[in-house]
Amino acid sequence: MCAPFVIDDVREQLSRRGFLAALGGAAALVAAPGNASAQTPAPGAVRLPRGFRDVHDLTHTYSSKLPVFPSFHPLQMTPKFSIAKDGFFASELTLDEHTGTHMDAPMHFVPGGVSADRLPVDRFIAPLCVVSIASRAAKDADTTLAVDDVLAWERTHGRIPAGAFVAIHTGWDARVPDPASFINRDAAGKNHAPGFGAEAAAFLVGQRDIVGVGTDTLSLDMTATGTSAAHVTFLGAGKYGIEMLANLTSVPASGATVIIGGPKHEGASGGPTRVYAVV
Amino acid sequence: MCAPFVIDDVREQLSRRGFLAALGGAAALVAAPGNASAQTPAPGAVRLPRGFRDVHDLTHTYSSKLPVFPSFHPLQMTPKFSIAKDGFFASELTLDEHTGTHMDAPMHFVPGGVSADRLPVDRFIAPLCVVSIASRAAKDADTTLAVDDVLAWERTHGRIPAGAFVAIHTGWDARVPDPASFINRDAAGKNHAPGFGAEAAAFLVGQRDIVGVGTDTLSLDMTATGTSAAHVTFLGAGKYGIEMLANLTSVPASGATVIIGGPKHEGASGGPTRVYAVV
Repeated sequence: MCAPFVIDDVREQLSRRGFLAALGGAAALVAAPGNASAQTPAPGAVRLPRGFRDVHDLTHTYSSKLPVFPSFHPLQMTPKFSIAKDGFFASELTLDEHTGTHMDAPMHFVPGGVSADRLPVDRFIAPLCVVSIASRAAKDADTTLAVDDVLAWERTHGRIPAGAFVAIHTGWDARVPDPASFINRDAAGKNHAPGFGAEAAAFLVGQRDIVGVGTDTLSLDMTATGTSAAHVTFLGAGKYGIEMLANLTSVPASGATVIIGGPKHEGASGGPTRVYAVV
Repeated sequence: MCAPFVIDDVREQLSRRGFLAALGGAAALVAAPGNASAQTPAPGAVRLPRGFRDVHDLTHTYSSKLPVFPSFHPLQMTPKFSIAKDGFFASELTLDEHTGTHMDAPMHFVPGGVSADRLPVDRFIAPLCVVSIASRAAKDADTTLAVDDVLAWERTHGRIPAGAFVAIHTGWDARVPDPASFINRDAAGKNHAPGFGAEAAAFLVGQRDIVGVGTDTLSLDMTATGTSAAHVTFLGAGKYGIEMLANLTSVPASGATVIIGGPKHEGASGGPTRVYAVV
């Protein structure tokens, strides 16, 4: 069977980026004897040139300098072996699962929820939809994604495609170098950062077909009220979340494909995750 | 600019899997007004249907049960929060970088070598070449990949493409459930598992254009002699290694694309890595 995600992706790539030029290459394949029904690739037919520029890294460099939720500790890294003494260098890491750019698996909030290592891998390559609420968040750190934001995105980009990964861009990424600004704690001890609103979460889960969601903040939920509504709605529906995404401004609002290199330790409620977007 | 890896991949997919049927869809795009020069996708044009079956997970489930090198400790996982008490579940992890399915970055063996977090991301999506030495390794655990093995692979599959990731399949994957058999220690305390031979490593680095290499064993080098020649050759040339790959028998020897979700902690000599192959 044909790999539909690759073909659909390429159809879309071709439509955007110069279909006719690419069709020339495709037509050449048709002209080559036997290619229309070939079951094995021609020797050397697969080429992924080095130096292509359309992979974006949506992952923060993970270190003890990154802000973390007050419940958690920053990454600890301890060199244990050295090239001079042991012939190789290696460190030991101690980390809380929900630090850095990381996944929330359903079991993080849902009793009996699935762990990250058991999520089907076909959910980890998905159309990426980026909905920005950054202009509003710049004025109101307690703002949330509303259903109207999703509908406005769809008026421009079309309906959220089946099997999509929906990320909100709040602008918090830019605050990472200043952890106090990122956590944004007020005098009363409340943290202020935007998130998915409860109604938008219910809409995405109930009215659209998504595999997971992401945010450039540390929490799917806005933090000031202490609600877990977005977490419970998404994770309760078996979706995963990715928190503390980086570089969402480097990718288009529609048309990219996200690749989620999630944690695979047994019984993972989450963990550090490498996230790419291919445009 | 066009994303060449996607287009080349799809040309190859189309040639293998039914070009004419897919061309029908492509032709429909041509017929739609404006598509040939469109710069933005048509609304809803991006579809990655759930349930496609051509993503393979080359990552072992990471747990304290996996075999590790004697220098290292198995993964430790400590639950620290519970849904009943804290509203969420989360664990703390302590791990040695070079355990589970993991990356070796150049700095693991090379003074001044680059760390995993600084490797360019365009090296992490690459044509996957799988060279099997499993039949020989079943009789001789100390066997190594030879230059002749690579040349024999090329006679069947064509020259190793530029920017490739070359993995050896030794059959060790099947021993993972039995750590003693995987480590394969003899009465004298020597471990026996296959690896890349020094000459083959030099050939791949000097005569072919590769981004990295992988193995289903715990070491790029065969283990009995304690040599580090393969490590030093590959990492010294700025390539990365992936050790303890899983499921290499699930993917073709040629034609798949590997996606390396590598560690991104600052100064990583390596670390747990999520690896997919898209066929």
